[in-house]
Amino acid sequence: MNGSSTPNLYLALVHYPVINKHGGVIASAVTNLDVHDIARAAATYGVRGFYVVTPLLDQVTLVHRLISHWTNGAGAAYNPQRRRALELVRTKENLDDVKADIRGNIGCQALPRTVVTSARNQRPVIGFETLRQMLDEGHPYLLVFGTAWGLTEPLVSAADFALAPVQGPTTYNHLSVRSAVSVVLDRLFGR
Amino acid sequence: MNGSSTPNLYLALVHYPVINKHGGVIASAVTNLDVHDIARAAATYGVRGFYVVTPLLDQVTLVHRLISHWTNGAGAAYNPQRRRALELVRTKENLDDVKADIRGNIGCQALPRTVVTSARNQRPVIGFETLRQMLDEGHPYLLVFGTAWGLTEPLVSAADFALAPVQGPTTYNHLSVRSAVSVVLDRLFGR
Repeated sequence: MNGSSTPNLYLALVHYPVINKHGGVIASAVTNLDVHDIARAAATYGVRGFYVVTPLLDQVTLVHRLISHWTNGAGAAYNPQRRRALELVRTKENLDDVKADIRGNIGCQALPRTVVTSARNQRPVIGFETLRQMLDEGHPYLLVFGTAWGLTEPLVSAADFALAPVQGPTTYNHLSVRSAVSVVLDRLFGR
Repeated sequence: MNGSSTPNLYLALVHYPVINKHGGVIASAVTNLDVHDIARAAATYGVRGFYVVTPLLDQVTLVHRLISHWTNGAGAAYNPQRRRALELVRTKENLDDVKADIRGNIGCQALPRTVVTSARNQRPVIGFETLRQMLDEGHPYLLVFGTAWGLTEPLVSAADFALAPVQGPTTYNHLSVRSAVSVVLDRLFGR
């Protein structure tokens, strides 16, 4: 891993723009357990930061209250392991702000390369082994997941890469985003 | 897969007896999203049934109401994919009743073999490749997950096998049970 024991990888969970079941563009509400579960998966697999992306101020307030409870409040004393996970969580209004923040964190001029994930095949995809090799080269990557019925087409098209969808032995492909994030990270970094 | 395209595998999510953070034996409350997420993962990876194990009558009522909403009620029309997943869910008071039910389903005398999962190493474990090969032989297996701080020691000891814990490149091993189930199924049957 290029001298580091953990990958140079960040996650974004997008709540706007995403699509609803009719294909319309919406802003979804933040789900409490998404933040918990994905933060815990991020900590398990060595992800460097997890961005909750929403432009809605009340949702940002909700996430900050949740983080604060578990990192400074009563939750931090009750469950230090949860604190360690939730310390990875940040909020940003959109993906451009996420990318700029990562560039600032790592103190370099290059923006992270973006990789979208989707249960649908919308564009040519790269496999898990390919992404693993790309990560080994050391450049930062941002793995982008959508809530509700998934990322909008323009957002998918604008990404640098799209990752192959997760599949099992059936035609059913409706994992929760919490499950999908965990499976993708395990396929990349599981032992 | 012995003539079948999906594994001869069942899941159990145990809410009693499990341990709390101090090691005491408790009955945990059923988490709504556990039922949804694990049912969706079960449908994705071809699992034949998902048992929510609790002796608490109010919890059983809660789960039945949830299943009914998504399989017969307004939810079934709103989201048929969710129905397909939640049709896999059943409730039982304890693991013996789960095993008897599976034996009844498959119409044979043999009980399913039980495989416990744990984030802690409590006894000699089998690897994912070994379990995959065992499943290929066609005998039914029941994969058992614990809620709260995990399964009690007697329950772990009584199982036929224990599966290796899921690990990433860090020492952090606090995935949610929703994540752990998804990762385990993907390691066994992911494509």
